[in-house]
Amino acid sequence: MANLDMMRRLQEPNSTKIVLLVMDGLGGLPREAGGPTELEAANTPLMDRLAKDGVLGQIVPVGPGITPGSGPAHLALFGYDPIEFDVGRGVIEAAGIGLEVNEGDLAARGNFCTVDAEGKITDRRAGRISTAKSKPLVDKLRGIGLDGAIAEVEVLREYRFSLLLRGPNLSPNIEETDPLTTGQPPLPAVGLDKASEHAAKLVNDWVAEARRRLADQPAANALTLRGFSTDPNLPKFKPIYGLDPACVAVYPMYRGVSRLVGMKVINFDGETPADEFAAVGEHWQRHDYFFIHIKKTDSLGEDGNFDGKAAFIEQVDQAISGLLDLNPDVLAITGDHSTPSRMRYHSWHPVPLLLWAPETVRSDSATAFGESQCASGGLGTFASAELMPIMMAHARRLQKYGA
Amino acid sequence: MANLDMMRRLQEPNSTKIVLLVMDGLGGLPREAGGPTELEAANTPLMDRLAKDGVLGQIVPVGPGITPGSGPAHLALFGYDPIEFDVGRGVIEAAGIGLEVNEGDLAARGNFCTVDAEGKITDRRAGRISTAKSKPLVDKLRGIGLDGAIAEVEVLREYRFSLLLRGPNLSPNIEETDPLTTGQPPLPAVGLDKASEHAAKLVNDWVAEARRRLADQPAANALTLRGFSTDPNLPKFKPIYGLDPACVAVYPMYRGVSRLVGMKVINFDGETPADEFAAVGEHWQRHDYFFIHIKKTDSLGEDGNFDGKAAFIEQVDQAISGLLDLNPDVLAITGDHSTPSRMRYHSWHPVPLLLWAPETVRSDSATAFGESQCASGGLGTFASAELMPIMMAHARRLQKYGA
Repeated sequence: MANLDMMRRLQEPNSTKIVLLVMDGLGGLPREAGGPTELEAANTPLMDRLAKDGVLGQIVPVGPGITPGSGPAHLALFGYDPIEFDVGRGVIEAAGIGLEVNEGDLAARGNFCTVDAEGKITDRRAGRISTAKSKPLVDKLRGIGLDGAIAEVEVLREYRFSLLLRGPNLSPNIEETDPLTTGQPPLPAVGLDKASEHAAKLVNDWVAEARRRLADQPAANALTLRGFSTDPNLPKFKPIYGLDPACVAVYPMYRGVSRLVGMKVINFDGETPADEFAAVGEHWQRHDYFFIHIKKTDSLGEDGNFDGKAAFIEQVDQAISGLLDLNPDVLAITGDHSTPSRMRYHSWHPVPLLLWAPETVRSDSATAFGESQCASGGLGTFASAELMPIMMAHARRLQKYGA
Repeated sequence: MANLDMMRRLQEPNSTKIVLLVMDGLGGLPREAGGPTELEAANTPLMDRLAKDGVLGQIVPVGPGITPGSGPAHLALFGYDPIEFDVGRGVIEAAGIGLEVNEGDLAARGNFCTVDAEGKITDRRAGRISTAKSKPLVDKLRGIGLDGAIAEVEVLREYRFSLLLRGPNLSPNIEETDPLTTGQPPLPAVGLDKASEHAAKLVNDWVAEARRRLADQPAANALTLRGFSTDPNLPKFKPIYGLDPACVAVYPMYRGVSRLVGMKVINFDGETPADEFAAVGEHWQRHDYFFIHIKKTDSLGEDGNFDGKAAFIEQVDQAISGLLDLNPDVLAITGDHSTPSRMRYHSWHPVPLLLWAPETVRSDSATAFGESQCASGGLGTFASAELMPIMMAHARRLQKYGA
C-alpha cells in the first residue's frame, strides 16, 4: 500500500503536536579529508542534547545517488513519494512566488535571453541580469492580451520569471522552447498532443507580443520557456494525516510547495530563525503540525562558505530553545537535501536527521548531531518520505495495522 | 520511476571514469564465532587505506534472505532490477561461453548424465566428467540436422554444455527435462503453451539424435536440458548511463552477462588480478566505465578454503595499486554475492562494499575493509541495483531531479 493510503487508513486523532524543522541543504562534507562537516564543526549544545535524548538517522530524499531539487525534496519530507508526485517546475515556481495556481492553470518557468540580429541566442541567461533589473522587464510583460486566456507574470530571481496562463483547455504537454544552446533561435512552443495545441498557440501569441515589448532591450531582448505544467492536484495533507498543518517559511518557493499540499502558510515579521520560531509560538494553539523552513544553510552552502554555514547552524541552535519552550511532542530536525559547501551545490548525500520525542523515542548512543553519528544512528538510513509515518507514530496518531 | 528510467532521464556527460571491481563471492563468515571473516583475516593495507578515505556499506543483491545466482547478482551490480530482468540460465551461459545469442534464438543448459539399460538415470552428472572429457562428446553433438532450426553446442565446464537453436518460432516456455532425481528417465521436452510446442518438438528431435550419438559412452550416455530461454533483449548500458562500458573478466559467464547489457568485452593475456588491472590500464582511454571481475574468491569459498580465500584477497590487494595509478574518479570494490567458505556455497548475506571517490565521498569512521565495519558503514545497507546511481552521482554524471 502506498504511504499515503496507509496514513489515511491508520490515522487517529490526538492532541499531540509535531514540528518539522528543515534546515535547507543541511547535509555537508568535510572541508578536508578526516575533518568535520559544517554541522559537525558547528558548536550546537542544544541540538547535541536533543541528539543524546533522541535518536539519529539519515534520510534519502529521492533515491540513492539522486540529487533532488527543492520541490521533490520537500514533497518527500511531507510524505509524498517524489517520483509518483512529479510536480512540474513551472507550477512549483509559480506557487513559490505566490501566484495562486488553480486547477486548469498552465504555468511555465521563463528565462530572459539575448538574441542577435538574426534571432539566434547569444546568451541563454541575458548576462545573468539581476532581480532588480528583471523586475521592470517583467512589468513590461504584464497585461498581454490573449484570445482565450489571461496571462500573469512574476519575477523569480535574476533573469528568471514565472508565467501563468488562466483559461479553458490549457493542456501542458508542450515542448520547452529553450534550445539549451547558443547559436540557435528560441524554439516555438509545440503541443506534443492534440489537446495541447491550443495552449501552445496561446503561448506563441504571448511570446510574440513579449518579444515586441523587449525588442529594444540591450541584453534581455528575448525569452525561453520551460517546465510547462498544470496544478498537480496533490492529495491534501489534512485528510491524509488528520493534522492541521502550518508552514513557517521566508522564501516563496517553500511557501508554494506547502500551499500545494494544503498547508496554511503563516505570515510573520522578520526572517531570522528566532523570528520563525516566534511565529510558530504565536500560532501554536491553532495547528498541530508545523513545517519550519530555514533557507540560509543552503544559500551559504551554495556560496561555498563552510564557516558561514557552520556559524549559521550555531545561530539556529541558539534560537531553538524558543521552540523547545513550546513542548512539542515530536520534533524532527533535518534538511531537504545536502548542500556541501565544498561542492557549492545540492548533492545526493543522505541528509542527517535528529528525531526527538521524549515519550516514545528509542534512543541510540549518539552524543552529538552530525553526519557521522547520523550514519550509524538508531533510525538507520531510510527514504525521506518515511519520516512522516515515523513522526505520526511518535505523536501517537496512528492505529495498529491489522488485528 | 524505475531505476533505469531515472538514469536515462538524469544522466549527463562528463569526462570522469568509474571502476567497479567485483571479487566474486567476496562476502564471508568467520571460521569460528567471534573470529574474522576471510576478508577481515586478510592483510589488506591498500584496501584498508581506501576504506579510511572512502566510505563503507553493504549491498543486498536480490532481496533480504535471497541467495542469488551469478546472473542476477551481476545484473543488479549493473543497475538492472534482477527480479524485473529475469534472464534465463540458458541464455546467460550461452552468452557466457561466447555463443552469440540473437533475437529469437532458444538457449538451454545441458548436463551429461548416465542412464542404465532401462533408460533410468543413475548419475545426474555423468560421474562429474572433466571439461577435457566433455569436449569430444560435445564435438560429437555438432551438426545435428533439424527440420526448421540450426543447432549449436559448446562445452561449458565439466559435464555441462550449452545448446542453442536458431530458427523461426522458437518459444521458450518448455519444461526442463531433468527429473532432478535418479531412478527416473530424462523427461521429454514439453511445450507449456501452444507457441512453444514447435520448439519442444525440435528439442526432442535433437535429443533423440544426440542420445544415438552418445549411446556407446560409458558415463555420459544421455543428457538433460534446463533453463530454456531466449534473448532477454536487455536495455543497453550506454544509452541508459551515457557511459562507454568495458568488461575485464576471465570467465565466460561474466563476459556473457556483460555482453548482454552491451559492454565491450576486452580480450587480454593472463588471468591474475594484476593481469586484469593491466588490461584496464591498456584500454583506459577508450572507455569510462570498467567492470572488472575476479573469480577465485568465489571458487575458493566454494572449496571451503578459508585461508586460500583470505590469501587470494591479499593478492588482489597487492595488485590494486596498478588500478589506483590510473586515478579513477570513482572506485567501488565489492562482490556479486557472498560465498562463505564455511558454507561452501553462495549465500544471501549482504555483500561488503567499499566506495572511494576522493572528490565527493562523505567518509565514515571505518578503519579497514571488512564485513563488520561495512555493516555500520556510512552508506548503510541497500540494494545492489542502487550502486550504479551512487557511482554515477560521485562521477558527477547525474543532473538534479526536479526544480
